[in-house]
Amino acid sequence: MSSVTSLYQLYGKLGSFEKKAEDIALGLTIGSWTDLPLLEQEQLKKHKGNVVSITEYENTRHPLKPEQIRAEIKITYPSLNFSSDLPAILTTVFGKLSLDGEVKLLDLEFSPELLAKFPGPRFGIDNIRNSLNVYDRPLLMSIFKGVIGRDIDYLAEQLRQQALGGVDLVKDDEILFENPLTPFEKRITTAQEVLRQVYEETGHRTLYAVNLSGRTSELRDKAKKAKELGADALLFNVHTYGLDVLQELVEDNDIQLPFMAHPAYSGSFTSSPSYGVASPLLLGKLTRYAGADFSLFPSPYGSVALEKKVALSLGEELTKVSAVKRAFPVPSAGIHPSLVPLLIEDYGIDSIINAGGGVHGHPAGAIGGGLAFRQAVTAVLNGIPLVEAADQHHELKTAIELWG
Amino acid sequence: MSSVTSLYQLYGKLGSFEKKAEDIALGLTIGSWTDLPLLEQEQLKKHKGNVVSITEYENTRHPLKPEQIRAEIKITYPSLNFSSDLPAILTTVFGKLSLDGEVKLLDLEFSPELLAKFPGPRFGIDNIRNSLNVYDRPLLMSIFKGVIGRDIDYLAEQLRQQALGGVDLVKDDEILFENPLTPFEKRITTAQEVLRQVYEETGHRTLYAVNLSGRTSELRDKAKKAKELGADALLFNVHTYGLDVLQELVEDNDIQLPFMAHPAYSGSFTSSPSYGVASPLLLGKLTRYAGADFSLFPSPYGSVALEKKVALSLGEELTKVSAVKRAFPVPSAGIHPSLVPLLIEDYGIDSIINAGGGVHGHPAGAIGGGLAFRQAVTAVLNGIPLVEAADQHHELKTAIELWG
Repeated sequence: MSSVTSLYQLYGKLGSFEKKAEDIALGLTIGSWTDLPLLEQEQLKKHKGNVVSITEYENTRHPLKPEQIRAEIKITYPSLNFSSDLPAILTTVFGKLSLDGEVKLLDLEFSPELLAKFPGPRFGIDNIRNSLNVYDRPLLMSIFKGVIGRDIDYLAEQLRQQALGGVDLVKDDEILFENPLTPFEKRITTAQEVLRQVYEETGHRTLYAVNLSGRTSELRDKAKKAKELGADALLFNVHTYGLDVLQELVEDNDIQLPFMAHPAYSGSFTSSPSYGVASPLLLGKLTRYAGADFSLFPSPYGSVALEKKVALSLGEELTKVSAVKRAFPVPSAGIHPSLVPLLIEDYGIDSIINAGGGVHGHPAGAIGGGLAFRQAVTAVLNGIPLVEAADQHHELKTAIELWG
Repeated sequence: MSSVTSLYQLYGKLGSFEKKAEDIALGLTIGSWTDLPLLEQEQLKKHKGNVVSITEYENTRHPLKPEQIRAEIKITYPSLNFSSDLPAILTTVFGKLSLDGEVKLLDLEFSPELLAKFPGPRFGIDNIRNSLNVYDRPLLMSIFKGVIGRDIDYLAEQLRQQALGGVDLVKDDEILFENPLTPFEKRITTAQEVLRQVYEETGHRTLYAVNLSGRTSELRDKAKKAKELGADALLFNVHTYGLDVLQELVEDNDIQLPFMAHPAYSGSFTSSPSYGVASPLLLGKLTRYAGADFSLFPSPYGSVALEKKVALSLGEELTKVSAVKRAFPVPSAGIHPSLVPLLIEDYGIDSIINAGGGVHGHPAGAIGGGLAFRQAVTAVLNGIPLVEAADQHHELKTAIELWG
């Protein structure tokens, strides 16, 4: 039977979880059970939430309430109870419950029938690779820096420098919205011209992800316009809009552009260890199901970091075998060339190496920054230690000297 | 100058907050400042985030890291940097920052120019009162109970019982989505017929809020259809969709129905004491700015409770003087008739008394439950102690015996 199965983390007294789990399973579905006449039980059975498992971690105490232990409970909700959209699913599994004390939604398992209702990425890793004609290494992405209040020439030059450094993708700053100096359409056409020139000069192709922003109902037309103008990809602050908004844009056959999901605002849901939604679920699985081709998230390396286990599991959610296409993990923040061996070890080649300061902060500018990253990637994939490669490549040498 | 001012809560070492605040103000706007040539400083000044205040609470330590104290910092962001929509504002003030360790967004202050871009409630408290012709007491609301898997006759009878008890509003269960047994349009027309009959029999008018659900792009047409069919109000799980989705529905002149914002899923953002967004901001101010006429939130009384100070401040955000209309606070969960004196003391008469179990669980059924509440309200407003009023009203007496 089609269903969604939720995994929750709770705290409580040892032995208290069975009742709690049963209360949740009923409270979020048919309300009551044992009080019902047999005939009604028969009739409502197919709507009832069912407790699948309860795992008590006796040795993991609540950090502030030592009388409470951590537990994970798993409950299955029949798809009969909700329409096949994320707002209905999230309301069912974590609507009222999100307000019910210290409980965190760790995972959701969609039955195959339910997952079939979700598009997943339109392009996914393989088609993005096709469009760049790059198959054997992680892609390299960089970010515009300090572009608020700047004009289109400033952006164009910054883009040119980044592209000349050999990055595969450049994304807009997520805080750059519709503005008179660098309007959306102008950014698209200008970037196209800059990147065409760089391609003619160097043979290197770079894609530009423009920030799709504005009122919800305008997004569709703006995205279509972007498509018409020849945009490469759309950056989208999905968590300030809603996952279903992303999904509808992805499903629209008149848009057909890769979507890059930005994690802006998502920390509001994911950052607490005991409330909200786990990062691998929100930024990994659900962002993929809703159709993002790329998902950015805090890397486990920088100062703004996800716990390593969590950041790895997030990457897995984006790339593991599923009925929907794979999306690129984009671990972000604190990335510099010396981290490339670790990035490839942790995320494999089907990932994006994404740097802001690590590109722009290079003493030889964004060109040098880009080159240093590319040199590091080539070295790692050829089994050459970075320090050795640095002897051949002065951009990499400079980067290692600067960032260690 | 038009702007939004954010109030954040952080933890850190005494004296560390000035640099942190400056980093945020720059990081979320122009990126850098002291490195810039004077000419560029001149040019970018109007885009720069500005630290307004830093308040260190030396006596409030982090619960787990005693070397850290609590601080509140206030930063103003010029409206020049963002379009006048909530996704852009939330990305600016709490996009990347939400992922940057233990930081909570406590409040946002919109300048009058910025607030003028937001509709606020289309109806608000006064117009809702006009439609019910009730001016001198809190309104009474009840909730359908255990309706998943039930047919339309079951719902109709439950609605009738509640209306006969004298409740002013009945809301759908927020987990009731589009389904073959009780489809959206059928719920509207059936409820209308039931409530018309009750009105003819008793002269009492009850409004029914139907749950507006489904894919984001379908909501507008569904809402228009609801309007056409004569629906009274729409219940909406806004936090699973996005605040801007609500705002666009409210702004649509073809809809023009009161919106009741349900807090489902909002605990994901609000529940942690040190991460996410404060409840009074999300469920109070922003829900009001986005246009909800009613906002439900956990009451400070039940087992699923908000801290009293927070729950009161939330009510104030919905009703205090502002350029937008006032919205009804609907403190929910754990409400029974004996709490009416406290509810009126805490929220005044411009609020909704909302009960589920407190209506349906009455020994005389939902009719008795509704009556007991109305009797309690009348008593309180006439300065009569409940125990005294209970002598005259056996429904109230029974309720007090049951719930204390």
